[in-house]
Amino acid sequence: MIQIEKIDLRAAAEKLSAYWTQEMLGSANGSLFKVVRGKDATNWHAHSDEDEVFLVLQGELVVQLRDRDVQLKQGELFIVPSGVEHCPKAANGEDVLLLVIGKSVTSTREGGKPEWSFE
Amino acid sequence: MIQIEKIDLRAAAEKLSAYWTQEMLGSANGSLFKVVRGKDATNWHAHSDEDEVFLVLQGELVVQLRDRDVQLKQGELFIVPSGVEHCPKAANGEDVLLLVIGKSVTSTREGGKPEWSFE
Repeated sequence: MIQIEKIDLRAAAEKLSAYWTQEMLGSANGSLFKVVRGKDATNWHAHSDEDEVFLVLQGELVVQLRDRDVQLKQGELFIVPSGVEHCPKAANGEDVLLLVIGKSVTSTREGGKPEWSFE
Repeated sequence: MIQIEKIDLRAAAEKLSAYWTQEMLGSANGSLFKVVRGKDATNWHAHSDEDEVFLVLQGELVVQLRDRDVQLKQGELFIVPSGVEHCPKAANGEDVLLLVIGKSVTSTREGGKPEWSFE
């Protein structure tokens, strides 16, 4: 019997209360599938050893890059390649719910998690 | 400058006309991000060397497994582990739009693509 269950991504993200803390829900082919609740901005950072994929489940995300901003609405996906500096922020002061896919849990100081978001 | 652009997943899937033919839109950490338009059922198959992730963008998908059916609605994600037999089908005779994540393009006969869907 297969143990894994389906995941309602938005419902899983809605349950989160801590900001910018990734909850891992599953893994496939070495990638982790994580949901996140975001508000305001993270800190500028880059991941030297993994690409990072953002998919907006609710709200709006701005992936700030050094040369431009990428505005993402619900259902839009963006891949930040390894080594590229980025600073994701929720738009308009509202919460954003995200699916984040990458090789590790990156909600650390090095991964851009802002000081105010540590409990 | 970063070349990759954001992807509106549903809009990309809506453009597809061929059934069960995956279009690759991006890659991250060795995983390919593919959109698919499905109708009716694929054939039973398993992937010996990769997990396969399904996320429903529109419509309903039934991931038939040997011991049960997993019904997926919009926003629901399911991971079929490597080696597990499965037979995805669109529910209710309607089209389903999907994001499929895996290591390779699996819309082949060995990957379950049904005979009628080859053009």
